[in-house]
Amino acid sequence: MSMNAFVMDGIGETGITEKEPPEPGPADAILKPTKGLICTSDCHTVHGAIGDRENLTLGHEVVGVVEEVGDSVSDFEPGDRVAVGAITPDWNSKAAQDGHSSQSNGALGGWKFANVKDGTFAEYAHVNDADGNLAHIPDDVSDHEALYTTDMMSTGFAAAENADIPIGGTVAVFAQGPVGLMATKGAELQGAGEIIAVETVDKRQELAQTYGADHVVDFQEVDPIETIMDHTDGEGVDAAIEALGTDQTFQDCIKAVKPGGTVSNVGYHGEGEFRHIPREEWGVGMAEIDIVTDLCPGGRLRIERLLRLLETDRVDPTEMTTHEFEFDEIEAAFELMDKKKDGIIKPLIHFE
Amino acid sequence: MSMNAFVMDGIGETGITEKEPPEPGPADAILKPTKGLICTSDCHTVHGAIGDRENLTLGHEVVGVVEEVGDSVSDFEPGDRVAVGAITPDWNSKAAQDGHSSQSNGALGGWKFANVKDGTFAEYAHVNDADGNLAHIPDDVSDHEALYTTDMMSTGFAAAENADIPIGGTVAVFAQGPVGLMATKGAELQGAGEIIAVETVDKRQELAQTYGADHVVDFQEVDPIETIMDHTDGEGVDAAIEALGTDQTFQDCIKAVKPGGTVSNVGYHGEGEFRHIPREEWGVGMAEIDIVTDLCPGGRLRIERLLRLLETDRVDPTEMTTHEFEFDEIEAAFELMDKKKDGIIKPLIHFE
Amino acid sequence: MSMNAFVMDGIGETGITEKEPPEPGPADAILKPTKGLICTSDCHTVHGAIGDRENLTLGHEVVGVVEEVGDSVSDFEPGDRVAVGAITPDWNSKAAQDGHSSQSNGALGGWKFANVKDGTFAEYAHVNDADGNLAHIPDDVSDHEALYTTDMMSTGFAAAENADIPIGGTVAVFAQGPVGLMATKGAELQGAGEIIAVETVDKRQELAQTYGADHVVDFQEVDPIETIMDHTDGEGVDAAIEALGTDQTFQDCIKAVKPGGTVSNVGYHGEGEFRHIPREEWGVGMAEIDIVTDLCPGGRLRIERLLRLLETDRVDPTEMTTHEFEFDEIEAAFELMDKKKDGIIKPLIHFE
Amino acid sequence: MSMNAFVMDGIGETGITEKEPPEPGPADAILKPTKGLICTSDCHTVHGAIGDRENLTLGHEVVGVVEEVGDSVSDFEPGDRVAVGAITPDWNSKAAQDGHSSQSNGALGGWKFANVKDGTFAEYAHVNDADGNLAHIPDDVSDHEALYTTDMMSTGFAAAENADIPIGGTVAVFAQGPVGLMATKGAELQGAGEIIAVETVDKRQELAQTYGADHVVDFQEVDPIETIMDHTDGEGVDAAIEALGTDQTFQDCIKAVKPGGTVSNVGYHGEGEFRHIPREEWGVGMAEIDIVTDLCPGGRLRIERLLRLLETDRVDPTEMTTHEFEFDEIEAAFELMDKKKDGIIKPLIHFE
Repeated sequence: MSMNAFVMDGIGETGITEKEPPEPGPADAILKPTKGLICTSDCHTVHGAIGDRENLTLGHEVVGVVEEVGDSVSDFEPGDRVAVGAITPDWNSKAAQDGHSSQSNGALGGWKFANVKDGTFAEYAHVNDADGNLAHIPDDVSDHEALYTTDMMSTGFAAAENADIPIGGTVAVFAQGPVGLMATKGAELQGAGEIIAVETVDKRQELAQTYGADHVVDFQEVDPIETIMDHTDGEGVDAAIEALGTDQTFQDCIKAVKPGGTVSNVGYHGEGEFRHIPREEWGVGMAEIDIVTDLCPGGRLRIERLLRLLETDRVDPTEMTTHEFEFDEIEAAFELMDKKKDGIIKPLIHFE
Repeated sequence: MSMNAFVMDGIGETGITEKEPPEPGPADAILKPTKGLICTSDCHTVHGAIGDRENLTLGHEVVGVVEEVGDSVSDFEPGDRVAVGAITPDWNSKAAQDGHSSQSNGALGGWKFANVKDGTFAEYAHVNDADGNLAHIPDDVSDHEALYTTDMMSTGFAAAENADIPIGGTVAVFAQGPVGLMATKGAELQGAGEIIAVETVDKRQELAQTYGADHVVDFQEVDPIETIMDHTDGEGVDAAIEALGTDQTFQDCIKAVKPGGTVSNVGYHGEGEFRHIPREEWGVGMAEIDIVTDLCPGGRLRIERLLRLLETDRVDPTEMTTHEFEFDEIEAAFELMDKKKDGIIKPLIHFE
Repeated sequence: MSMNAFVMDGIGETGITEKEPPEPGPADAILKPTKGLICTSDCHTVHGAIGDRENLTLGHEVVGVVEEVGDSVSDFEPGDRVAVGAITPDWNSKAAQDGHSSQSNGALGGWKFANVKDGTFAEYAHVNDADGNLAHIPDDVSDHEALYTTDMMSTGFAAAENADIPIGGTVAVFAQGPVGLMATKGAELQGAGEIIAVETVDKRQELAQTYGADHVVDFQEVDPIETIMDHTDGEGVDAAIEALGTDQTFQDCIKAVKPGGTVSNVGYHGEGEFRHIPREEWGVGMAEIDIVTDLCPGGRLRIERLLRLLETDRVDPTEMTTHEFEFDEIEAAFELMDKKKDGIIKPLIHFE
Repeated sequence: MSMNAFVMDGIGETGITEKEPPEPGPADAILKPTKGLICTSDCHTVHGAIGDRENLTLGHEVVGVVEEVGDSVSDFEPGDRVAVGAITPDWNSKAAQDGHSSQSNGALGGWKFANVKDGTFAEYAHVNDADGNLAHIPDDVSDHEALYTTDMMSTGFAAAENADIPIGGTVAVFAQGPVGLMATKGAELQGAGEIIAVETVDKRQELAQTYGADHVVDFQEVDPIETIMDHTDGEGVDAAIEALGTDQTFQDCIKAVKPGGTVSNVGYHGEGEFRHIPREEWGVGMAEIDIVTDLCPGGRLRIERLLRLLETDRVDPTEMTTHEFEFDEIEAAFELMDKKKDGIIKPLIHFE
């Protein structure tokens, strides 16, 4: 018996191939994906960001149906419609016991799919610790909606949760890709009084407003720091969110926050030896500016809570879906995402 | 020179009388109120909740125009349109330095208006520490809207902020008077995934939904704890908010939260020797249920942030205004509020 | 094959009996205890505090040697010298994912030993999730010392950690049994500037000073609240710790803290329908007094950190050991602990 | 009438000169210093770190006797023996209301002495907001001891308080000057289980052990990161404290902490355009490593709490005093401090 999987097979090489289907350990589940989303980090991976990989199934944003469970799984059974976070922590690890489940057993250790084991772009995918990492999708939440809990909502909202936004406070969100858009929405859901989104692409500027931005700053047209200072009477914002992963936006975040403010990073910084903290704007190390970071929180509780926000219509993430493909067209979808062509934000993959 | 003031003159006695206008100390301001709201706590005060008072001007929810400032005031000047919080802390007190400004110089010590000094229902009112306690009202925020920042929004939102609501979490709000309604809205602004409001009065049930409640539980018709457990798969809510001040609702809050949950109290508990914690539902003192309380946070920063939420249309509190009166009709307004007649929620007073 | 176990067999009935030794599931371990301590909660259990139990092995404070591990255990092997917390959480449960591991799968759900499964006073004991719940004992930490990490240090220190003690702040600890003594030491380890211990038993008063109390208040001789107020210039303490579990001490804690202060409960409240909050001293529900609770935090990380404090000589808990017994004398030890005779604080059991 | 003051008069220029004594505003006090300590930041200032200054009295670490108070001061009177923090915040500022008093009215805005107004190395010194910024010295605390609360204890302890050290956790403190030494002591007072001090100067290594370091790493002899990893089984520390202000030690802090750990900076970063975050060790911006900073917390409450730690003998900071001088010898003391000659740590100045 074999199954189709969309794999990376050496840096820069991708394709659909045949593989043995996975089998569950006692606490695990086998998931049959129904819908998926391609993530920019899949593209980074293929370009070698985490090193070379051979015959590694890509993908970490899917929902589906449980196909099989291990003997000790108690809360899920075949046929259940479920979502699984992109990050599937080892919940008994010391890092998870310490409140840092995404770092379980090493930095970024909760990131298993398409990193240290096969990802989810296949007919079947293996999920470690099913009781801890799966979540039932409520009846009135569609697969399409639920998909966004696995990474974009979890990551973007985490950016806002970590930003320590006071109710009525001011927030700047740098970059409005799908993570940035969800950070913008997250800031609204944390009670921000004024949200300033920094972005230059039209469609993304538009969605930023849909998701709660009060102002959109086009950094190609104006100086973003100057504009943020203008909007805040020269004070700077309470919180700045980095959702891109470049040195420039990182530095801008530090320049944009007020003394006592927070820089919350969720951008993946893939290149360069250093990130640079501008010494003076950082208050020579004494201005009480916190710099915090996160990796997409996973786990059953997290995904259930995000699904609840869909159930009660607090957010509609599907507006970010710009393209749709069948699974056998996934290579084309990947190509489009990789090149960021055609105004793509997120491409939806139908598995059946 | 004299001015009119609406005063309490002995328990149960109220009326408009003439008084000397106040004068500012070096750091203070004199405010000329333009609009006000009567608070249920004004009624409690008149009935003796904080003891007897003679010739004490009532009121603590007003906005107005600065009439005069002391010599050391730097950020406000006559003619400025401003709001002032119901609580006007001593910012250099040890409690304020400790993050508890409402408790400055003693329990509830930040509560000065109509408690330890004349309140705001007069032609002129004295504001201690103008730079610390006044806030400019933005041009596009009306006096009517701004009024709600002084107490209802600050208190109700604080209930939600203190409740430690996880994004996507579940919240029950007990009672939907104006503070409860703002707690409901506050829960939404903190990212709650499901909000259950407990209330029996029609108009309040309706407003609860306007302000974000996903379910309204009529405690006259069903058992609220049972209903909350049904809505949460028997788990209980992440947070329960007490916005009434009775032993019954306080106990219900403890029964409604899950282990690890938070009970956030903003109800004013005016009667009885004790509040009762049900021992078993409290997990025999080991279920990690936190019980936290607050008194309406005041101060310039707080009010500015709440005004910002009005400026960006995150909330419209004016829907709670059910009645309007001129200042010379204030006794009738007070009577209505005291008796909670005619479906009253908040009566608006026009000073001019 | 069979083993000896000290069991409860109906309310009030205890004795050594023969049992089948336990077997490990894939993630579990079998521990061969070498030393143990009897806990007052063992006595409560025998008296029916958690209901009737038949043939239930007692005990939850032991250290020992790993006898056997399940197939998926990776970090422990037979022969390892280890400690196991009294609480052995299900780390993938939603409560644990939420930071409340002691409440995993229900209120107090992490408490398994001598509650929902056999305890540790036997030749062999079963430990769920060995990688998550065992900790290696460092070479220079004795079994005797390490024993105290399993409950007394974890519980007592948690009381102090939860109390939100500012560095240099004031703390009152009500009752100086072994948990209270460790709460006193915990307060010192959290940087308290002044620690007031409330206790009447001589030996316990003495140990309170050993463990960091600056003042000892004998509630039989003076009014403890008055004395605490005297020591704090009438302000009250920043934090009060309840380490007994009575209504009286619980109320005293609320009376002892200042506005903005914290009451941290770790006492087990075994009796009565209610705990009573004195309404006025509680600031009518508005004085920002937090009431927080906990159940002995468990898990590998927690125990490793507590062992580290022994390794670096931050505390010597063995001073609390007042008596020693062989395992076949455990019934006498239990009797002594139950009756609190002979100045007993903690009786040490040698298993071999 | 005139007084002697030790001033900076242009970059690099210092000397004792005559000045008009200061006068108090209504909320202020005039202090007559009795003892003082020179701070390395006084040296930085003279070398131009905060720009040029003319005839600016230096110094911010003194204790003394109240000479005179303004009309509205209520808690202090002439003759009181008091300490005043190096940082004297404007407590009604928005930053202070937000919990960032050291940033009141701008980045580092609470730092007034020898920055935006005359410092304390004079016969008389002006203290803004006496009720908010002075603290009575308890009878059994000497002037010499109390001096250390004004900056060294407050700054060093803040480093530890901000480091989010779990009880029993591991901490590395980079540099053991007086701030680093107090950070080491602070880590002990926060319950650290293992403290690793990085320092090469003999006397400072010795004091590090006095103040709680379990290991001292001489970075001239071994690689500090490697050694820290060895001491922590390759995991890294829970918290790293930067107490020097160089790019090297800042980078080392990031390399030393584990995923989920905290870098707490109190070093004054006086030079260079940037501080550099090593991208990979920072977990590409996703390893949940927080970088936090602070400026010496001031204010009456803070100083009172630090004085309490002296009163109860939790720390003896006077071991850091290596030299003593009369006020008229202050230029020699300054020279010694500036050049870090003769093994100097802190020079004590006697004003009378």
